[in-house]
Amino acid sequence: MTLNLAADPIALTAALVDIPSVSRDEAAIAGAVEAALRAQTTGFEVLRHGNCVLARTDRGLPQRVLLAGHLDTVPIADNVPSRRETRASAATGDETRASAATGDETRASAATGDVEEVLYGCGTVDMKSGDAVFLHLAATLAEPAYDLTLIFYDCEEIEARFNGLGAIERELPEWLAADVAILGEPSGGLIEAGCQGTLRVRVTAGGTRAHSARSWLGDNAIHRLGKVLAVLAAYRARTVDIDGCEYREGLSAVRVEGGVAGNVVPDEAFVDVNFRFAPDRSVDQALQHVRETLAPVFDGDPLLSLELTDSVAGALPGLAAPAAARLVDAAGGRFRAKYGWTDVSRFAARGIPAVNYGPGDPNLAHKRDEHVPVAQITEVTDTLRRFLSAEPA
Amino acid sequence: MTLNLAADPIALTAALVDIPSVSRDEAAIAGAVEAALRAQTTGFEVLRHGNCVLARTDRGLPQRVLLAGHLDTVPIADNVPSRRETRASAATGDETRASAATGDETRASAATGDVEEVLYGCGTVDMKSGDAVFLHLAATLAEPAYDLTLIFYDCEEIEARFNGLGAIERELPEWLAADVAILGEPSGGLIEAGCQGTLRVRVTAGGTRAHSARSWLGDNAIHRLGKVLAVLAAYRARTVDIDGCEYREGLSAVRVEGGVAGNVVPDEAFVDVNFRFAPDRSVDQALQHVRETLAPVFDGDPLLSLELTDSVAGALPGLAAPAAARLVDAAGGRFRAKYGWTDVSRFAARGIPAVNYGPGDPNLAHKRDEHVPVAQITEVTDTLRRFLSAEPA
Repeated sequence: MTLNLAADPIALTAALVDIPSVSRDEAAIAGAVEAALRAQTTGFEVLRHGNCVLARTDRGLPQRVLLAGHLDTVPIADNVPSRRETRASAATGDETRASAATGDETRASAATGDVEEVLYGCGTVDMKSGDAVFLHLAATLAEPAYDLTLIFYDCEEIEARFNGLGAIERELPEWLAADVAILGEPSGGLIEAGCQGTLRVRVTAGGTRAHSARSWLGDNAIHRLGKVLAVLAAYRARTVDIDGCEYREGLSAVRVEGGVAGNVVPDEAFVDVNFRFAPDRSVDQALQHVRETLAPVFDGDPLLSLELTDSVAGALPGLAAPAAARLVDAAGGRFRAKYGWTDVSRFAARGIPAVNYGPGDPNLAHKRDEHVPVAQITEVTDTLRRFLSAEPA
Repeated sequence: MTLNLAADPIALTAALVDIPSVSRDEAAIAGAVEAALRAQTTGFEVLRHGNCVLARTDRGLPQRVLLAGHLDTVPIADNVPSRRETRASAATGDETRASAATGDETRASAATGDVEEVLYGCGTVDMKSGDAVFLHLAATLAEPAYDLTLIFYDCEEIEARFNGLGAIERELPEWLAADVAILGEPSGGLIEAGCQGTLRVRVTAGGTRAHSARSWLGDNAIHRLGKVLAVLAAYRARTVDIDGCEYREGLSAVRVEGGVAGNVVPDEAFVDVNFRFAPDRSVDQALQHVRETLAPVFDGDPLLSLELTDSVAGALPGLAAPAAARLVDAAGGRFRAKYGWTDVSRFAARGIPAVNYGPGDPNLAHKRDEHVPVAQITEVTDTLRRFLSAEPA
């Protein structure tokens, strides 16, 4: 299948959706993207690396912008090929977007009048519309004001160890150099800056096993978890403002498990707790906070223990950096905090300001009825074209 | 393999252990038992029913005693064939037995001096030693004072629906008629009367699913379980005396489970709770008690619900019945409450007094190092011979 990069990015989004690319099965789409970049762009060095496709200019411009998007999707759920529909404009409902600055607010659809065009299909939101915008701009920007690096990568939707951008970080780190990085992840057409950190701890409760018919001979590990859950239920999360972005933290039990058999007092149970923390805390500081929060129930009970199982640092918004500030300007000054962890933190860890900016409501990602208002694709394309064409100061 | 029923029941126990009979694989042992009963007893009607072997006399005696034992074992764990060992007499340690009447007490081993003979092997405790005692008595009782019914059955160690005694209850109920039933389950050589009832409820907590990065949009079902576990941890179980047997109840979480993914606030979690209740409560009354116990956390929270998943009634001790009282006399007046649920409750449900009485420490059942002091086999045999030979009043 040949992709036409010069076509409307809405049509290009549909064409990308119509090439199935569930994680671990990206060879076809990577091949189509590589061929199109080689044939339909000028001035780019193009490199295929596994199922990643990389392209960059080297015009000697003073600054470099990196555009990155993953090519894979979650499993298809009867939602490929794409289909375009006209529907009543949804000024409220699933087009309602949370604004970090002012709380929930309703934003009018970009479509005028009472109807809007919508594109349905797996990946329309997450994130082939973002990929389409980047590919279209690479082929059609007449006078880019920045050198450009494009990275299309695989395996973002599965375990982190398979992540294609992670592979590039390890194997081709020089390709990640940039003054600002834009990930085309769905952000509802708003710039989402930074991201929260996340860590998981496993709180394990011990006890003494016994037959439940003689429960007094045992010491029930599941019962012991009760006081841990009580602390989590009572926890009041912090909200903090960084660079004008409001971050709201959260401490959540995400898994609980215990039990030996229906007639046994169990001697072990655990609860996995996920702490999402604002990027003004390091992982160590965040872990310390979790320990302090649970200290009242841990102290004096040697049968409760805590182990860090997983952590990634957050990313400070970095909007003070000049190229990032100009991007915010081009987007009309609108931005908000990103809550979920995304690959932007890989750039933040390298000192590169990075934002999420792409069409589509992130709440529709991974849904069977995943769909994007096509006007958002146009809007993001126009904003990025404006940003990338302006002279850096 | 030919079983010699007239031999010492210790040797007969070893012979039975040496015929592997894991649940669902009892054909060989049932065949050996059937053949031996047909060839080596007189006055018995013998019936093979699946892998159950039934035998009964009909001498027109005024009362009937039923002796029942299962032939199957849990899976073998390198502990077949049996082996006999001499060891230092364990007057304490695993020979310590809980007495319902007086709390824990240490009972001197039946072995004299400082050493005792022990028989190791899968089924030595649970419950081929009990089977051996019954088979030996059937072949050697010169003048039984009662008509006898013997039932050897299969599939006691697996799901209740396979239980061979259950099959006889449904298909040959007339075989269960008796004035007292003795199950040869391991009881440490003490008469264990009645049994507690057991029921399980699943307490399910609902909530609202959300990404854990935006946990305030969700309502965490696992957190909600905290208050349920707090009630269980604080519960003070009742102790009640019935017919001189002390029953101690227990309310235990036996399983807890919840969680969708490591980054999701879960909308469902559950805890399975096992209530072991004294036989003065019916199942309905016991369930009502569980509901009342949890009412403080359930009231006003429509996202907590409770469902009965499993129940069996307890069995009143029934020691006031004449034949049961004589058995207690023959055993020197020693008895205690049975805690675990056993097949005795099938007889209790039919109005037949039923006790557990067999050699072996029940705490060693299902263990790799399962073993029985051989003196207990002799002691139980002697007691039952005394009981079955005496004229009923």
